[in-house]
Amino acid sequence: MAEAKSTELMEKLVSLCKRRGFIYPSSEIYGGINGFWDYGPLGAELKRNVKDLWWRHIVHRRDDVAGLEATIIMSPRIWEASGHVDTFSDPMIDCKTCKGRFRADQIDEIPCPQKPSKCVQDCHGEKTEPRAFNLMFTTHVGPVRDDSSVAYLRPETAQAIFAQFKNVLETSRQKVPFGIAQIGKAFRNEVTPRNYTFRSREFEQMELEFFIKPDEVIEAIHGSIATPGEGHPGEPQPNWGWQIWHKYWVEERIRFYESIGLPRTTLEEYWQTPEELAHYARATVDILFQFPFGTQELEGIAARSDFDLSQHERFSGKPMKVFDDELRAAWKQLDESKQKDLRQRYHDARLGYLTRTGVESEKAAQLAKEDADGLAKGQYVPHVIEPSAGVDRLILALLTSAYSEVTETDAKGKSETRVILRFHPRTAPVKVGVMPLLKNKPGLVAKAREVRDLLLPHLTVFYDDGGSIGRRYARQDEAGTPFCVTIDFDTIGENGPELEGTVTLRERDTSEQTRVKIDELLPLLIEKSR
Amino acid sequence: MAEAKSTELMEKLVSLCKRRGFIYPSSEIYGGINGFWDYGPLGAELKRNVKDLWWRHIVHRRDDVAGLEATIIMSPRIWEASGHVDTFSDPMIDCKTCKGRFRADQIDEIPCPQKPSKCVQDCHGEKTEPRAFNLMFTTHVGPVRDDSSVAYLRPETAQAIFAQFKNVLETSRQKVPFGIAQIGKAFRNEVTPRNYTFRSREFEQMELEFFIKPDEVIEAIHGSIATPGEGHPGEPQPNWGWQIWHKYWVEERIRFYESIGLPRTTLEEYWQTPEELAHYARATVDILFQFPFGTQELEGIAARSDFDLSQHERFSGKPMKVFDDELRAAWKQLDESKQKDLRQRYHDARLGYLTRTGVESEKAAQLAKEDADGLAKGQYVPHVIEPSAGVDRLILALLTSAYSEVTETDAKGKSETRVILRFHPRTAPVKVGVMPLLKNKPGLVAKAREVRDLLLPHLTVFYDDGGSIGRRYARQDEAGTPFCVTIDFDTIGENGPELEGTVTLRERDTSEQTRVKIDELLPLLIEKSR
Repeated sequence: MAEAKSTELMEKLVSLCKRRGFIYPSSEIYGGINGFWDYGPLGAELKRNVKDLWWRHIVHRRDDVAGLEATIIMSPRIWEASGHVDTFSDPMIDCKTCKGRFRADQIDEIPCPQKPSKCVQDCHGEKTEPRAFNLMFTTHVGPVRDDSSVAYLRPETAQAIFAQFKNVLETSRQKVPFGIAQIGKAFRNEVTPRNYTFRSREFEQMELEFFIKPDEVIEAIHGSIATPGEGHPGEPQPNWGWQIWHKYWVEERIRFYESIGLPRTTLEEYWQTPEELAHYARATVDILFQFPFGTQELEGIAARSDFDLSQHERFSGKPMKVFDDELRAAWKQLDESKQKDLRQRYHDARLGYLTRTGVESEKAAQLAKEDADGLAKGQYVPHVIEPSAGVDRLILALLTSAYSEVTETDAKGKSETRVILRFHPRTAPVKVGVMPLLKNKPGLVAKAREVRDLLLPHLTVFYDDGGSIGRRYARQDEAGTPFCVTIDFDTIGENGPELEGTVTLRERDTSEQTRVKIDELLPLLIEKSR
Repeated sequence: MAEAKSTELMEKLVSLCKRRGFIYPSSEIYGGINGFWDYGPLGAELKRNVKDLWWRHIVHRRDDVAGLEATIIMSPRIWEASGHVDTFSDPMIDCKTCKGRFRADQIDEIPCPQKPSKCVQDCHGEKTEPRAFNLMFTTHVGPVRDDSSVAYLRPETAQAIFAQFKNVLETSRQKVPFGIAQIGKAFRNEVTPRNYTFRSREFEQMELEFFIKPDEVIEAIHGSIATPGEGHPGEPQPNWGWQIWHKYWVEERIRFYESIGLPRTTLEEYWQTPEELAHYARATVDILFQFPFGTQELEGIAARSDFDLSQHERFSGKPMKVFDDELRAAWKQLDESKQKDLRQRYHDARLGYLTRTGVESEKAAQLAKEDADGLAKGQYVPHVIEPSAGVDRLILALLTSAYSEVTETDAKGKSETRVILRFHPRTAPVKVGVMPLLKNKPGLVAKAREVRDLLLPHLTVFYDDGGSIGRRYARQDEAGTPFCVTIDFDTIGENGPELEGTVTLRERDTSEQTRVKIDELLPLLIEKSR
């Protein structure tokens, strides 16, 4: 029952998105291309708004985050360092009989292409053993196509941030703790793209890498480490360790989602269990949203230790350590036993990393010792907290959350169900519809165009003069436009001077209509859209 | 001499961009990757501003353009229809001796890898005949890598607009004439990337396809066609033919460049000669900018006839024609000789297109007849004007244009040359620097933070408390920040009540300093940054 309802909602959403120009199948006139989706006029505006709000929230409104815009194709060495070349794969089997290729963990669900009554697992085709199929799209850079020219389309935006960490640190006047943010396309050659735009092969990410001091460094400088309490930890403090920073970012991200119109009740926090965590992760929280097809991840916030920068340091041979005057000064003031204790803990953490990533034991012991020696000189590799969000799934969440239906019955008893997209005004693709009451009255049209031109430089406006005013309101409701302004005979003074120069402001969510002076319209709408 | 100066300027720019975080080589810690560049914190903001200004200018401030955001990987059929699969290539030769691959038109410049004293043309290596090397990056979609899974990274954003033309038309309530705009990444596997970011392998485009009625249709409806005069043609009129639309967009685009700070004197219009035009193009104007390495194209504005939509109609089998009530009604009113004349001209144009694109003559004759018959039913394939701009080369133009040096001599006679980036406030990455006069006076710092927090939600702000105030101004000049605000003892009332609550506003381009009330600061800076 619940499932049928969800499927129905999903079908309605997909159809609405196509019909109103939010989302189209990519290359539709050529039969489409599986796992790729285009954003139409309304979708492109919605996406712009969401990315812009994220950037303002993460980069502009704070002064401890810098932006970056790196390329999609980077040196393939980056993906060796990150582990993607070796391990970013799904196990696949080939059927020698039908020549099909299938995900090994799905052969008990996928029907055999030759005998669809049976699943691949139970059909008679001769199958290979599972082999790793890398999910990165591959290409070749330069005129010669050979192994040396292979490159990948980035499967995530994060790695460019690590690769450019030193450049940003040296040119942005930032000091740890600080973050680097990036928005951009990423690509994963998913074997089974599914759930509409949720799991696409081409998608967009909004990622922040927030670099912090290791706990041993905080303790050396401040004597102790602040630990997280209940609720939002408040403004960042110098004595914050990784746990409270991690919690801070979880809370900040949830605040963000609430601020753009996803009710807290539709979000869930999921703390990964120790078994689920990647070997380098200290903790990961997934922020989940109740999609029609199930409760699924919107964003992951991972405390990734110093794994990423350390990997790039080893693979590139370029130092990723920072020099911290405060640490160097504080270290000298510590008594010997404290130094020894912190040194040992830092040493063990570094040794753990080196051993887990396959560094041979003698070499690992030497490197860990050098790293631990670095503390006294004020040197360390920063740790990182990574809030990583998917733009496309957020768009889908906003559409799901905004979707509502109303059934209205007219005087003749005829009832009609129509859709209202209740977007937060911040995200709404169009902020205001401007409408002359009638399109064949030059006075109304001229005034309506004047109002449109007044608003256009500041707000996204849709001018509509087609059909009854009720139909036009309904059309804007369906597009998620929060406000409509109607220019009528009162506006142009045909019914006397009292209401001349005023318009009807109609609000989507209440259908309430008020008279507003044209002079006051722009600041009012800007305020309401903020 | 002029060349040496240009090379010097280029070197200074590259060094400044790296040092201040505008542009870094991609994957630099791994030795870089030829033809790929990343934007650092200041570069990312500059690029965001430029893209945002274009979008507002082209999409938001008009109501005859809709936005689109399509995928980078599309159906490979799109690139067959567009001609890229067959003809988007450079001729290459291989040297069988050194195994090198070279552009055939450059072998008299490129030194032989084995004998650098000779060029490839004159060395003794045995060379192949020139062969076409396609510039599209290739990848494979899905788990199987074979010919059927080949796909391309788009070499331009334009084609997605044509492929989605019907979807946008049907869902956006637009009618011809109207445009579809898109900003996004594109990729060309250039054999010889060069001139810094000017010719990169990964780059970003801002493209508008503005669809118009064919001249025959205009003439049928309006009796005659408006032709372009001198200067800007003014507001679009229903009787505009392709020539005046083309001129309109050339003028609009130049206006845009002027509005974001490129002086008209640095721009040139170049009208391609008939020999240079692509076979489908009616006219193409290149807008050129005086880069340090030569006067080169910033944007091309092409009148592409109905070539693109017609190609997609033929390759996809999906109709790209629009139905135009006005045409159908007007057609009935025309006398027979006028109908015959317009029909013949339209027929000949269609036949010309079909023949030039290799349609077999009997088939072409039949299709051209059907197309001409369509006029009476109000049917035609729209023509298009395409203003196509490169984001990265525009960024480079803005940096070049903004770059200036000043030499200042201090009281001791010591002179110092420093850089000022004179960005238009609209494009400047940081709008305002906020500085407490001294960082060790808590009263100044608290007030400066208050001012920062006042401005942050509305403007990009850089807070700086390090070094002398002169050094801090110089730092902001070099980043192109148009305004600095200094909080001093007057601000906090330590020198009496007259200047309490005022700050020093310092302007980059004049070095002028004025006192401004904190209450008036935000609206003033918003106004000045607009």
